[in-house]
Amino acid sequence: MTDAEKIYSDIEAIRAKAPLVLNITNYVVTNNTANALLALGASPIMSHAVEEMAELVAISGALVINLGTVAPEYLAAMEPAWTAADKAGVPTILDPVGAGASLLRTVTPLALLADHKPFIIRGNASEITTLAGGEGGAKGVDSTASSESAVMAARVLRKKHGGAVVVSGEVDIVAGEGIRVQVMGGSPLMPRVTGLGCTASALCGAFAAVNKNPFEAALGATVTMKVAGEIAAAKASGPGTLQLHFYDALYNLSLQDVEDHIKLVR
Amino acid sequence: MTDAEKIYSDIEAIRAKAPLVLNITNYVVTNNTANALLALGASPIMSHAVEEMAELVAISGALVINLGTVAPEYLAAMEPAWTAADKAGVPTILDPVGAGASLLRTVTPLALLADHKPFIIRGNASEITTLAGGEGGAKGVDSTASSESAVMAARVLRKKHGGAVVVSGEVDIVAGEGIRVQVMGGSPLMPRVTGLGCTASALCGAFAAVNKNPFEAALGATVTMKVAGEIAAAKASGPGTLQLHFYDALYNLSLQDVEDHIKLVR
Amino acid sequence: MTDAEKIYSDIEAIRAKAPLVLNITNYVVTNNTANALLALGASPIMSHAVEEMAELVAISGALVINLGTVAPEYLAAMEPAWTAADKAGVPTILDPVGAGASLLRTVTPLALLADHKPFIIRGNASEITTLAGGEGGAKGVDSTASSESAVMAARVLRKKHGGAVVVSGEVDIVAGEGIRVQVMGGSPLMPRVTGLGCTASALCGAFAAVNKNPFEAALGATVTMKVAGEIAAAKASGPGTLQLHFYDALYNLSLQDVEDHIKLVR
Repeated sequence: MTDAEKIYSDIEAIRAKAPLVLNITNYVVTNNTANALLALGASPIMSHAVEEMAELVAISGALVINLGTVAPEYLAAMEPAWTAADKAGVPTILDPVGAGASLLRTVTPLALLADHKPFIIRGNASEITTLAGGEGGAKGVDSTASSESAVMAARVLRKKHGGAVVVSGEVDIVAGEGIRVQVMGGSPLMPRVTGLGCTASALCGAFAAVNKNPFEAALGATVTMKVAGEIAAAKASGPGTLQLHFYDALYNLSLQDVEDHIKLVR
Repeated sequence: MTDAEKIYSDIEAIRAKAPLVLNITNYVVTNNTANALLALGASPIMSHAVEEMAELVAISGALVINLGTVAPEYLAAMEPAWTAADKAGVPTILDPVGAGASLLRTVTPLALLADHKPFIIRGNASEITTLAGGEGGAKGVDSTASSESAVMAARVLRKKHGGAVVVSGEVDIVAGEGIRVQVMGGSPLMPRVTGLGCTASALCGAFAAVNKNPFEAALGATVTMKVAGEIAAAKASGPGTLQLHFYDALYNLSLQDVEDHIKLVR
Repeated sequence: MTDAEKIYSDIEAIRAKAPLVLNITNYVVTNNTANALLALGASPIMSHAVEEMAELVAISGALVINLGTVAPEYLAAMEPAWTAADKAGVPTILDPVGAGASLLRTVTPLALLADHKPFIIRGNASEITTLAGGEGGAKGVDSTASSESAVMAARVLRKKHGGAVVVSGEVDIVAGEGIRVQVMGGSPLMPRVTGLGCTASALCGAFAAVNKNPFEAALGATVTMKVAGEIAAAKASGPGTLQLHFYDALYNLSLQDVEDHIKLVR
């Protein structure tokens, strides 16, 4: 099977099984990420109620922990959720939004990683560099780190925590055990829509629910983002219309679409 | 008057009076439901600040309590709000999102219903079946219950709590005192947009603010959802574009639109 | 330079510098306002975590405090954030959403204004009238106050607190020291999209980050809203499509666009 065929078979599995993906995520992107998961064929649930975490984790195919909102009422759910996921064998995706921008955003993901093994970590270059112990140079939730330092950081993080690491940027980097791939494509309009990085992490959750190999799941989500973004950009006249067409593209994605737009360098 | 004419006269009343609809709702759909209410002609306010609940209820035409976010800071406002609504004679719509998916999502609406009479309860088949005491079989916030069991559950709930009950699905069921109607139409794309169920509950609030008959208000909102969804789907190429055209359809809805798309079986 | 040229030069500065704009805002509009800031070229960050406020303020070009959600967990961040902004010399925009609709929504902005000087206050006629001590006549978060009383109120507020005051409505009023301008244009569809007022306040933040004159920053944001709204309305068939085209218009805005659509009366 080609890369495109492998990824598309995961998409077909998501559509067939509609796995539940539990998201503890920020209040900026809940709606968007839920819509992206639904458009792809997964079944999203968004919650930060600690009282129901263990129950929801137990019925979920993946857990996505996104640090976009670091208010205490959100943070309180994360550790119990991840503990429940470890116990239930549910793969957990960590999105360290804004790591480097504030102490709280830096130490929270590090504290979680001290106790748990991530299935996938996904962030921008600043966030990944910060987590790896470097000077991330975040500007708020946007990245200023170089992609070279991010490649190094991804390697460090992966070695320490296992699983796969995705660094999002103009060129995405997906690092697994003994393998690293660059994914090109997408559109310069994508960073002008809020939360598409968070959406990439949510899609990692959908792929993780159907593929037990963290690198393959991370690659599937990353390529799907680039492919759908590129298709959407061709129909868009700005970031507003891009976002809509992006959902439509996820919903309508065919093997041919993936084959036409996939751009990988191993 | 035909059903379409009756429903459209309620829509005209909503547009003329722009009733305030107070929503204690989840952080996934606040934006969407506010937009749907505005597009239809109502005036939405979204809050979960317990300190202002009594004041806001007193100036509202309806209260919508949606259990999509069951974090304590949201739950705390619900009981005081409903108590204030009872006192002020403000009709209250209950949306038991995810009832059956976690203990908290099951017991919270039951606890509210133990103390208050709903004007309308709206949920999917799993949620309604769970509230009626059955095995709802929820998968997260999505339904797996059969429509037959939902019809039975709607009858049980209605008998116990009064008001009207709406079960959303491919075919919607609206149950009032001595009457039950099936509403067809809409689009298979609708469940692929997050929060359209929540939007249906919010629209129940708008209709409740202008029509004191719970069955008629529930039917108006249910038919409006199906009609606008069907009009939007004809212009959409996926769930992203569907959502936009849905707002446009609500805004532009004419008597002719309702007459052309209404599909009822009594 | 003409008004259009001055405003467009600020837009170019926003695009060139991508200033960080920190928003403590309500959970209805976080997504929209972040998207509007990104589309214009600024870099938004949304947070209400009191633990990180001082750090985030220190790296931000402006702080936007929006009172749309008055739950305690949101309110707790506002006073510390504004204090940090005062210390760091970061201009602060206040949006008193729903002032007049509940005691909490009225006293909170007044309490903040008792201790801090706003760079810009932006609200609708009811909100501004309420803050100035008048009978605002709010209907929920929508306005019922006359524009005459709002002009008076804007003058009172400006005199008392300094900075600039924007009153949004069919005709917007921008008041600075010794100057008052009316801004026409936009579209009647705009109030049918939730949170476009909040978006106006967020854009005030973007302009404040590049222009130290509060009146000019307020005027730039106000004109940009009307211009982009008018361009979007020409392509829209309702409030759903309006919102998208609005983001696209912000992203694509040219000097010619501003010149073609600016409508000022001094």
